[in-house]
Amino acid sequence: MDKKILELIKSSRIGHLATVASNLQPYLTPVVFIAQENCIFIPLDDKPKTIDVKELRRVKNIKENPKVSFLVDHYNENWTNLWFVMMIGHAKLVQLNGKTERKMNEMTKIPDMFLKKYSQYTKIGIGKTYIKLMIEKTIYWKYNQNQKKVLSKLI
Amino acid sequence: MDKKILELIKSSRIGHLATVASNLQPYLTPVVFIAQENCIFIPLDDKPKTIDVKELRRVKNIKENPKVSFLVDHYNENWTNLWFVMMIGHAKLVQLNGKTERKMNEMTKIPDMFLKKYSQYTKIGIGKTYIKLMIEKTIYWKYNQNQKKVLSKLI
Repeated sequence: MDKKILELIKSSRIGHLATVASNLQPYLTPVVFIAQENCIFIPLDDKPKTIDVKELRRVKNIKENPKVSFLVDHYNENWTNLWFVMMIGHAKLVQLNGKTERKMNEMTKIPDMFLKKYSQYTKIGIGKTYIKLMIEKTIYWKYNQNQKKVLSKLI
Repeated sequence: MDKKILELIKSSRIGHLATVASNLQPYLTPVVFIAQENCIFIPLDDKPKTIDVKELRRVKNIKENPKVSFLVDHYNENWTNLWFVMMIGHAKLVQLNGKTERKMNEMTKIPDMFLKKYSQYTKIGIGKTYIKLMIEKTIYWKYNQNQKKVLSKLI
């Protein structure tokens, strides 16, 4: 992925995750996240939820259908400053210290990365389950440009 | 829909629209919008696009599968101020002065409503085609509450 695009993504405090049930109904969630070169980590954290994380619609949808979309964008009343980055990919659930993720070295760093980006996690739990999105395609749009550019197509 | 929720939606400058292709791949777009009691209007406006509006992925997806999700949300570094409203419904394309929409009185008001909400449209065209989302279900979440509330379920 283009380094400037990656920096735009990393500088964003919030992103939007779209998941889809097998009945073709999309579902949207605003999420905090950590961006790496080819993937996005999203925690199923301890913000108030009515139900167990396993019962969350986004979790059920990912198990049913791993195809997701993730967007970071910037709104400004001067529309020439508008931009967005949309990432398309496959998501899965990964557990910290769990059996589903082989690269333990990678996972052990994740909580600290969240704590560094979001100091709010000193007060609430990050949780042990994360959504890991493997980015397959990135689309960057900026108002002044005359075209969308497909900047990375890894698969 | 609860009046306070409708006011939250109307006060938002931007929303996020999720559409889905029949292959279960979701697609996300940040959009400007007008909210009414039971529906959302989103213009296919003259912001720079590489392709004709009919070729836009969101347009193709809605024709393939009208099930959409629309989200307005508020991010704040004090997470106790977080909230979002997710709307689930069916979308269709409507034309200003077109044949696809019978309620012409409704449609003729829409451009003025956009111009009133977004003064930016004095400089760029709003376009004649809109995505009209009929809201079927609204989910409101606020950090301090202990549960998501389904506030309206029209269908």
